[in-house]
Amino acid sequence: MKQYPRPLGRLVNELSKMPGIGGKTAQRLAFHILSLSDEEAKALAFAITDAKENMKYCSVCGNLTDQEPCAICRDKARRQDIICVVESPKDVMAMERMKEFDGLYHVLHGAISPMDGVGPEDINLKQLILRLQNTDVQELILATNPNIEGEATAMYIARLIKPSGIKVSRIANGIPVGGDLEYADEVTLLKAMEGRREL
Amino acid sequence: MKQYPRPLGRLVNELSKMPGIGGKTAQRLAFHILSLSDEEAKALAFAITDAKENMKYCSVCGNLTDQEPCAICRDKARRQDIICVVESPKDVMAMERMKEFDGLYHVLHGAISPMDGVGPEDINLKQLILRLQNTDVQELILATNPNIEGEATAMYIARLIKPSGIKVSRIANGIPVGGDLEYADEVTLLKAMEGRREL
Repeated sequence: MKQYPRPLGRLVNELSKMPGIGGKTAQRLAFHILSLSDEEAKALAFAITDAKENMKYCSVCGNLTDQEPCAICRDKARRQDIICVVESPKDVMAMERMKEFDGLYHVLHGAISPMDGVGPEDINLKQLILRLQNTDVQELILATNPNIEGEATAMYIARLIKPSGIKVSRIANGIPVGGDLEYADEVTLLKAMEGRREL
Repeated sequence: MKQYPRPLGRLVNELSKMPGIGGKTAQRLAFHILSLSDEEAKALAFAITDAKENMKYCSVCGNLTDQEPCAICRDKARRQDIICVVESPKDVMAMERMKEFDGLYHVLHGAISPMDGVGPEDINLKQLILRLQNTDVQELILATNPNIEGEATAMYIARLIKPSGIKVSRIANGIPVGGDLEYADEVTLLKAMEGRREL
């Protein structure tokens, strides 16, 4: 980084550590930051430290929040008898964008993956069992990702919970809306056929 | 931004103000920042405020620097009799990456563009004239961009400086190395033909 003066070099270096930000983009962003007003640059720096300091995981559901418990867990207008289990806080946001589901969430922070040495005890599963024991949840929707790890996690949780009498469901696989049958892989197509519904 | 808790929403908002960073990328970066250690997040925030506070323009050449004058202007090992005129500090960095030019630079911070209301007095030109009067520069290389504004700026400076007897040159236009003749536009091809050299 000889070509950059020290403070600029450090900024470019820090920015280039971010995912998907290469050297060229980091330089472009650094120059943009230098072109900001003092207030704007301070606002950006503050937003970083503030988010890092004030965003925690909800002790109930594991979602990202700045309150304890999180806004969703505290919202008594939401259905308290249905919990949607997802892998990450990003998945909660995707679900909330849908604006249809008004139950609660549980964030696992990962999926069971023996290949990566991630077992059932390494994800936020014990807390889910505790929740199910202390509340009268009627249905658990398993919305882990439809890949090997997500499916294994869903199977594991289903087997664990079913004996308790709680209804356990799995989100559907199939052709995405707006997708093209021609380009669908065989497994997706098979799942779409298996999941067909009478009209 | 209802879907984000406040501190996260602010971070996503600040990040998405940056050029080329849309909502999805901003969210991805924000989650990455939350996944950093406290020290790493602070280092990133500090790099922003530090660069903003300590990066200035060199009073001699106008390049970005954390010292006064900049490292290039102070380097007595560089040729003092040749100045390369560029539009922006990024261009200085591109030139320095080449590792061939060992003269001095002058950064105009823009180009003459009547359409945008940018005249000769709006760029860092007066300082260049002063420099040329007080030093024994033998050659001025005009390395403004080969577009309308850059060419106009080069022509303007050439006409201004030539009477003083200083040699004024312009970087060559032509087919980029590794480029393809087939895809070159006519103007570039014409410039390449005009600038042909005997072997």
